[in-house]
Amino acid sequence: MLHGIGILNDEELVQLERGLADIVALAERNEFPITPQDEDGHTAIENFLTARSGEAGRKIHTGRSRNDQVLTALRLWEKEQIGLLLGALDKYVEDLEAVSARAGNVGLPGYTHMQAAMPTTVAMWLGSFAAAALDDVEVLQLALRLVDQCPLGTAAGFGVPVLPIDRERVAHEIGFARVQENPMYAQLSRGRMEAFLLSGCVQVMHGLNRLASDLMLFTTREFGFVELPASVCTGSSLMPQKRNADVLELIRASYHVVRGEESKVQNLTASLISGYNRDVQLTKGPLFAGMGKTLDALRAMSLVLTGLRIDDQACAAALTAELYATERALTLVAEGMPFRDAYHRVAEDEANRRHRPLEEPGVHPLIG
Amino acid sequence: MLHGIGILNDEELVQLERGLADIVALAERNEFPITPQDEDGHTAIENFLTARSGEAGRKIHTGRSRNDQVLTALRLWEKEQIGLLLGALDKYVEDLEAVSARAGNVGLPGYTHMQAAMPTTVAMWLGSFAAAALDDVEVLQLALRLVDQCPLGTAAGFGVPVLPIDRERVAHEIGFARVQENPMYAQLSRGRMEAFLLSGCVQVMHGLNRLASDLMLFTTREFGFVELPASVCTGSSLMPQKRNADVLELIRASYHVVRGEESKVQNLTASLISGYNRDVQLTKGPLFAGMGKTLDALRAMSLVLTGLRIDDQACAAALTAELYATERALTLVAEGMPFRDAYHRVAEDEANRRHRPLEEPGVHPLIG
Amino acid sequence: MLHGIGILNDEELVQLERGLADIVALAERNEFPITPQDEDGHTAIENFLTARSGEAGRKIHTGRSRNDQVLTALRLWEKEQIGLLLGALDKYVEDLEAVSARAGNVGLPGYTHMQAAMPTTVAMWLGSFAAAALDDVEVLQLALRLVDQCPLGTAAGFGVPVLPIDRERVAHEIGFARVQENPMYAQLSRGRMEAFLLSGCVQVMHGLNRLASDLMLFTTREFGFVELPASVCTGSSLMPQKRNADVLELIRASYHVVRGEESKVQNLTASLISGYNRDVQLTKGPLFAGMGKTLDALRAMSLVLTGLRIDDQACAAALTAELYATERALTLVAEGMPFRDAYHRVAEDEANRRHRPLEEPGVHPLIG
Amino acid sequence: MLHGIGILNDEELVQLERGLADIVALAERNEFPITPQDEDGHTAIENFLTARSGEAGRKIHTGRSRNDQVLTALRLWEKEQIGLLLGALDKYVEDLEAVSARAGNVGLPGYTHMQAAMPTTVAMWLGSFAAAALDDVEVLQLALRLVDQCPLGTAAGFGVPVLPIDRERVAHEIGFARVQENPMYAQLSRGRMEAFLLSGCVQVMHGLNRLASDLMLFTTREFGFVELPASVCTGSSLMPQKRNADVLELIRASYHVVRGEESKVQNLTASLISGYNRDVQLTKGPLFAGMGKTLDALRAMSLVLTGLRIDDQACAAALTAELYATERALTLVAEGMPFRDAYHRVAEDEANRRHRPLEEPGVHPLIG
Repeated sequence: MLHGIGILNDEELVQLERGLADIVALAERNEFPITPQDEDGHTAIENFLTARSGEAGRKIHTGRSRNDQVLTALRLWEKEQIGLLLGALDKYVEDLEAVSARAGNVGLPGYTHMQAAMPTTVAMWLGSFAAAALDDVEVLQLALRLVDQCPLGTAAGFGVPVLPIDRERVAHEIGFARVQENPMYAQLSRGRMEAFLLSGCVQVMHGLNRLASDLMLFTTREFGFVELPASVCTGSSLMPQKRNADVLELIRASYHVVRGEESKVQNLTASLISGYNRDVQLTKGPLFAGMGKTLDALRAMSLVLTGLRIDDQACAAALTAELYATERALTLVAEGMPFRDAYHRVAEDEANRRHRPLEEPGVHPLIG
Repeated sequence: MLHGIGILNDEELVQLERGLADIVALAERNEFPITPQDEDGHTAIENFLTARSGEAGRKIHTGRSRNDQVLTALRLWEKEQIGLLLGALDKYVEDLEAVSARAGNVGLPGYTHMQAAMPTTVAMWLGSFAAAALDDVEVLQLALRLVDQCPLGTAAGFGVPVLPIDRERVAHEIGFARVQENPMYAQLSRGRMEAFLLSGCVQVMHGLNRLASDLMLFTTREFGFVELPASVCTGSSLMPQKRNADVLELIRASYHVVRGEESKVQNLTASLISGYNRDVQLTKGPLFAGMGKTLDALRAMSLVLTGLRIDDQACAAALTAELYATERALTLVAEGMPFRDAYHRVAEDEANRRHRPLEEPGVHPLIG
Repeated sequence: MLHGIGILNDEELVQLERGLADIVALAERNEFPITPQDEDGHTAIENFLTARSGEAGRKIHTGRSRNDQVLTALRLWEKEQIGLLLGALDKYVEDLEAVSARAGNVGLPGYTHMQAAMPTTVAMWLGSFAAAALDDVEVLQLALRLVDQCPLGTAAGFGVPVLPIDRERVAHEIGFARVQENPMYAQLSRGRMEAFLLSGCVQVMHGLNRLASDLMLFTTREFGFVELPASVCTGSSLMPQKRNADVLELIRASYHVVRGEESKVQNLTASLISGYNRDVQLTKGPLFAGMGKTLDALRAMSLVLTGLRIDDQACAAALTAELYATERALTLVAEGMPFRDAYHRVAEDEANRRHRPLEEPGVHPLIG
Repeated sequence: MLHGIGILNDEELVQLERGLADIVALAERNEFPITPQDEDGHTAIENFLTARSGEAGRKIHTGRSRNDQVLTALRLWEKEQIGLLLGALDKYVEDLEAVSARAGNVGLPGYTHMQAAMPTTVAMWLGSFAAAALDDVEVLQLALRLVDQCPLGTAAGFGVPVLPIDRERVAHEIGFARVQENPMYAQLSRGRMEAFLLSGCVQVMHGLNRLASDLMLFTTREFGFVELPASVCTGSSLMPQKRNADVLELIRASYHVVRGEESKVQNLTASLISGYNRDVQLTKGPLFAGMGKTLDALRAMSLVLTGLRIDDQACAAALTAELYATERALTLVAEGMPFRDAYHRVAEDEANRRHRPLEEPGVHPLIG
């Protein structure tokens, strides 16, 4: 682009392209050092090119600022990472469906208030997590669309005066869907977009946290509906008999870690005035940590699902008579009895079956 | 629908439709009471219809549970509220544009690190908030699409056995775009969708928090770029001379209130097992508070913008020579000097202009 | 005090004291109205006294501002509420101890990683919550000591010029332990102290959340160690057989509500400049809600504990052989075998007992 | 202790003491490796001692579990770190007082609602932060008292059966004030104590965030009350004239980072059942990050204060006539006029001075 608008002549263009290719090659061999004097990678590149090509190197920073360079690099990274997350989500949905293909018809109790309530199936249970993941895909796709705006050329946040830089061309060449026109919005969106992206990660992690919670309950010896492969379990240093599903505990807890990263980004960009503030630099750590943790957790859950075994017998044994109370009431309804009458009839039967009266439950919530 | 599948006969249908119409009429006159014995509005309706129509009333709860009724009512409310938010966002963007139409060409300093940096204009400044709001519209539209799934018929979270209920018809009749198929997902999505919706509110509030922060700085006597109408200001009980822009402070702070509501919903649904848990009832207060606060804040900011006056003279006076340093450097670039050389030349001129050497800034961050 | 420094003469003092006594009497009968024109209770009092006593009433606001009045009223309220919380904590500890007095010696499995691990007792289990509550008492006592500083006389946050007001006397008369000397600290501490107070509430709620989590697991039919009285349970509108311990779910969820209130206060006072900012008004709602919820939850848990029944037989049945593996290993140690050798011996026995080899657990954490 | 209760004989004790001394020496030279097979430092030590001393090494894990070892190591670290924080807080208070010693009598405007309100002084302004820090000292001292309970001997969270271990002696020898008696409380307190500790860090960071906010406003060219040394400032890659106080922005933002760490710990330990859950491992990262960040920020602020210069002339120029309105009103009060009459008199004078009527401020809050 700088060549296109006459800042670089043909020879300088060639020099810089060669220099940049050299940097890529060096970096791939881990031989492109960034020293404290360079401050960061962007200056290191400029310094390298200047040392190599003199005047051409000193022209490389034309029409931009570290602000928009950092922002551009960040957005490119985000686009790539969202792609990885979407891929891992697809894989996770497939892994859920694979369990349902194996054991979807197995019946097990559905719980409300943590009490066995009505029958459900493995397919409905795991299908609910797949459905949640498909909604999460839409959130991440929107996040992708939002970050796919090219900030290069917004410079320090107020645009580039004097020079006729070609922002459309630059955006197109580095693969952005569109230009982020307003330079002050480029700065304002710093942290905002990351917060939204992390909200998407939080949604994904929420599903994993909930599935992990089910799995941990269902792998207790008291429930026993599910068995995990030994490869994802660990032992105890004191108790010789233990096999623990640590990975699920870590996934469960990671939800709150990602939430914490999200809240850092949401809070630390608040109450700032327009234009760049160094505060936003501290959004990077949380972004990297939050997205990385989410990707790790998705992959770990896929591993768990791959080896997961449903214990049909334990599930069947848990489907006791009282879980069919609703079905019995609705059968009476199908035979013509009004629902409320059928409800009371079955409630009475249940009380008799248990050989004791069903005490009246309390009406007023004690807290609310 | 209950008539369509043979639960209600023609007469019962007419009775119930009349009874429901009566309830609507009573409620509009505020004469439909809900007593503690009713527990909630859903039971109050059933009790009223049963008292009025006997058997027909006792059939009304057929094929559903309070769980899916509450969820359905909530989604209908959410759809309506998102519509109001989208309308208020549109109005806010118009109000920003109206200020730019009046005073968009006025130049004022752009700030980085809270230090005057380069010239900008009122149009670019306020345009950045309009651009942010337009991205927020996409987030709220996605939230609308996600909640537009009909949970009625998922009953207690495990579907309705025995009866051939017609979920497509019900969804269509009460205005949902589609059926939420998986009953356990209906329960799993409780709180999740509300969290996403509140994330959208947080995005909106973030823009308002930032605009309020700018306006509060720009209305200090020390900056003085902007003046607010007295109608949005308040006085002091001790200091006779004060006129304060309280509304902006309340908008700024409301960001964190909405964030708090979001975090309640995000956290209290974590680590629950599948199926209904009463915990989710506590997502309602935060949802109502968070969406209401956001709507209030958007409207309040619209009021502020309507009366806002830009002080051209104060803005012009603030555009001092050093803000054009970048422009001077890029003018040298346009004349052929490499950027880095131009940068150093202008930096030196600046130091001379200030009659003192520009001290070397520190290189290493002290914290990071 | 105003009389003591010569602002009020004897007659005015008597007039105002009578007027204030009248306000108290009216307020107790709910007959002291605060109109929108009054803005708040402080101005309503001044207006009432002025209407009643003329000049004396117009002197009542001498040496203070609404800022320090509001702050003083808030601190008095906080002191009272902390007292109530400390009382409810005491009661809760007593209720825990009463269960242990009844059933403390009953053995039940202790869990690690949600897997039955080693035997414990009801006394150790509930005693851990009592120990936590006793540490929480110290936190609340510190909160009490911190808020027990009198801000009256700091006026708008910069003190009272000209007049020789006697802050020590005022602090003493309205029951504060000491004067908050620095007027700007009075403002800076607004929100800070409330955040700390809410941190104390969060600690208390954390204990209740954890106890509720145990109780909900232990009252599932699959565990069945504990039974709750019907008076704290509710029914289902669809499933005739259900009895649910909703109160525990609400306590569990309330932890996150109080956390949300805390985070509002912590965040909305950040990044403000010194001196009063209206933002802090929005700390009141969270403070009232957070402290109120904590008090409610403590009292609700006390109700639960009062009617709680331990099922000795279910507990005994759950104490299966493998839970004594550690005890067997340590018995070998007591007989002279090195611990690590005893550990491996017992691990082998366990594997034989289960008629299958104990698979090697995975070593590397999958997520971390 | 193991020797005292007869587990180790004299020779084994000597062997182990020598082995441990060797480990210390190796670790100090960074020559004590922990391999993935070791899992962690505790097992690495046991493996080393077993390789060195055979049977004695296999006895080292007697009467403990990795749970209580990790917890004990953590508490020792926390005690040390709180000591460092208390030291840095002392230094910070001294540095605040040193500025006041230099320039405490300089008058400058006090602000309410970000509007110049009444005169204050540098001593009152900075003194408010010192007063806040002194209250924070009390919070950290309580945190120290709470963590100063020795968990060693609680083993996996249910105590040590069979063996007569001497917990008092162990606690005393490794420097704890007391034994944490209830083994299940040792586990329950994991994360709780860290959350409280981080609440203390949040309090400290809140003060720093607020001071940084003041300093950033006061170093704008528009306010100009304060000047920072170049050593804590950085430049711009685009704008040649810039000198930015990045360190203050990083301190301001770090408040929210520490808040995020606190919220991770508060949330991820919620809704767990009693006994060890691997989730708590993820409290370590936030604890280390949150305490480290707080210590860094305190030290960085001390650096800023050391070089800070108050611009007396800019401060004096900012003390314009209207800031003395309250003083004029109170002078009339001292002369016998009722406060409310004096208030209205001065308000009128102010309006005349500004050559325009003081418009009536709005009464009703627009949001709230």
